[in-house]
Amino acid sequence: MTTIGACLAQSTVIDDFKPASSNQPNKQYPQVNSERRVKAGITAPQAQKVQLDIGGKRYDLTKDEKGLWTGISDPQDEGFHYYQLNIDGAQVPDPGSLFFYGASRWGSGIEIPAKDQDFYALKNVPHGQVREHLYFSKLTEAWRRCFVYTPPDYDKKPGVRYPVLYLQHGSGEDETGWAVQGKANLILDNLIAEKKAVPMIIVIDKGYATIPSQAAEQKAGPPARGAGGISAFEQVLIKEIIPMIDAEYRTLSDREHRGMAGLSMGANQTIQITMNNLDIFSYIGAFSGTSNYPSTDPIDPATFSNGKFKDGAALNRQIKLFWLGLGTKEPSPFPGSVGAFRNMLDKAGVKYVYYESPGTAHEWLTWRRDLFQFAQLLFK
Amino acid sequence: MTTIGACLAQSTVIDDFKPASSNQPNKQYPQVNSERRVKAGITAPQAQKVQLDIGGKRYDLTKDEKGLWTGISDPQDEGFHYYQLNIDGAQVPDPGSLFFYGASRWGSGIEIPAKDQDFYALKNVPHGQVREHLYFSKLTEAWRRCFVYTPPDYDKKPGVRYPVLYLQHGSGEDETGWAVQGKANLILDNLIAEKKAVPMIIVIDKGYATIPSQAAEQKAGPPARGAGGISAFEQVLIKEIIPMIDAEYRTLSDREHRGMAGLSMGANQTIQITMNNLDIFSYIGAFSGTSNYPSTDPIDPATFSNGKFKDGAALNRQIKLFWLGLGTKEPSPFPGSVGAFRNMLDKAGVKYVYYESPGTAHEWLTWRRDLFQFAQLLFK
Repeated sequence: MTTIGACLAQSTVIDDFKPASSNQPNKQYPQVNSERRVKAGITAPQAQKVQLDIGGKRYDLTKDEKGLWTGISDPQDEGFHYYQLNIDGAQVPDPGSLFFYGASRWGSGIEIPAKDQDFYALKNVPHGQVREHLYFSKLTEAWRRCFVYTPPDYDKKPGVRYPVLYLQHGSGEDETGWAVQGKANLILDNLIAEKKAVPMIIVIDKGYATIPSQAAEQKAGPPARGAGGISAFEQVLIKEIIPMIDAEYRTLSDREHRGMAGLSMGANQTIQITMNNLDIFSYIGAFSGTSNYPSTDPIDPATFSNGKFKDGAALNRQIKLFWLGLGTKEPSPFPGSVGAFRNMLDKAGVKYVYYESPGTAHEWLTWRRDLFQFAQLLFK
Repeated sequence: MTTIGACLAQSTVIDDFKPASSNQPNKQYPQVNSERRVKAGITAPQAQKVQLDIGGKRYDLTKDEKGLWTGISDPQDEGFHYYQLNIDGAQVPDPGSLFFYGASRWGSGIEIPAKDQDFYALKNVPHGQVREHLYFSKLTEAWRRCFVYTPPDYDKKPGVRYPVLYLQHGSGEDETGWAVQGKANLILDNLIAEKKAVPMIIVIDKGYATIPSQAAEQKAGPPARGAGGISAFEQVLIKEIIPMIDAEYRTLSDREHRGMAGLSMGANQTIQITMNNLDIFSYIGAFSGTSNYPSTDPIDPATFSNGKFKDGAALNRQIKLFWLGLGTKEPSPFPGSVGAFRNMLDKAGVKYVYYESPGTAHEWLTWRRDLFQFAQLLFK
């Protein structure tokens, strides 16, 4: 963890910094240049030390005569990154950025323009809606919230019913992620406009649940599992969320028109839940995660997951799409873990699609691309 | 502006502080006690000076041996307040709070429990949805966003059409305010469940607009006014938003089923726009603002606003409800300005309802109460 990177970098940086698209209205900092460096800036006249904390590295900022601290990072990967500022030891959100939930906190994020950003851009195409849906969960004895994407024309065509994708966030994130930093609604709006994806409903819920009557059992360890080793979230999804969505939205409610996908922890959940419920789901998407996580050990399909994967031929008849994605820059254990899972699928003869997002790590541009690719294969 | 208040206060504070309901998940600070004092806390080991900035006053925090700074404010008014922390001269959001748009920035807010908080609580009643609705505005040549509240059963009763309230934020706020810190959706859910309000659609848009072809004229001064002294926002609302809402939602689209209300700047806009368009609106709500703002001078109805208010009898036949609200602790010029406006209405013989929110200032609890009162009189 070095902090001299900023000084070295400044001798060679290209000075074409512009305010990031993820900034608050009228805020000048942070900025991004054509090399994908981030220039942070904050006024803190009496501070002793101010740092930009991004991409696992801290960069020292320097103060000018007006008390404005600025500093420049190394080039960042394309896409969206969480970050923060450190002022005399306090980790705080940057007041210049919009705020996002991730890394287990609401805090700053920054958008680094990507070469392929057109696929998630806000364009002049028909737009669906993102609906905040509050509901009481009897199982968890708590209010929960999901966001439901309804495709363009949902309200204009009251006779039409739609397939449904259940789409899950990762660890440290929540139900706001996919429709904000994930841009799931814009990705689908654009795909539907180009007729590359069929109109569908997307349900984005929170992947955490605690069932009070099973709390003792759940304390045994994550992921929280209650009766019969079934996670609390699986119970809420199967017994409460899906029936509610099928009752309150115009869904096609057979397994042929229901899919589930998720990223990281949500990918692990997706594989576990769909494989436990192949009578309910026929499309499966696992972005940057598999159900053997975090192990990278070879897997024997005869014994893994109670043998659920051992009969490839049978699974290939049931599962319409098994889709795996990974960024080429993802850190350990993801490549090894996903790789071991793929080898297991190969050994069992389970068909799947595998996609690699070039130049991205365990971050949102990987998952935006995953959704973009995956959604084109759904419900066809 | 004194900073010794915290020290004085600490000698007598009641030590029953609990994390605020507006905190991020699992965050211990800020806290609120039964006296409605705020206890801020942030770890900043190397900082020289840390302050809590709330209610127009800054309170010094003190550091413990672990580098945790804490400090306690004077008792605050009931309701919701924007605030921030100051770390060695840097104004930053408190990483413990959720973030809200107001005071022209996304930043911290805190909920101080109110005696009457039940009316905006999340309760076990049927809930409507809040829908994010993206649209392209040809007039402003820009993408805009509104949030649309659809009442419970909107999707279950496809044959029913609903009246519409257009509800506006204040200066320095945006289209997120009413459905987040305003709790407009919960207020209506609760009222509808108790049959105290009729089910209605609420459209919450952003009260700013710039029409490029009128930009030179608009520069003449706020509020931005284009052709014929009509504000840019009025043009967008009348020509674009209302036709879009009537086309895309199941509205009752006559003037008898359309109202407009707003707070502060939005109240000023509401009076101007509704009085310019009495063929379109019949319900008018002005929360903490009137169209003579910021003047407190006596108003002559014969000449004010081109004489629009001079014929009270005619207005009383046209306007189904003219509703004004104010908090008892609002600062100058609001009491004088609203008072002068009321005197003008009295002089002209225009009937109106006047409500005062006890013990609240120019803040969101005033406006939540306004909506709660106003909504019960709508469309009946």
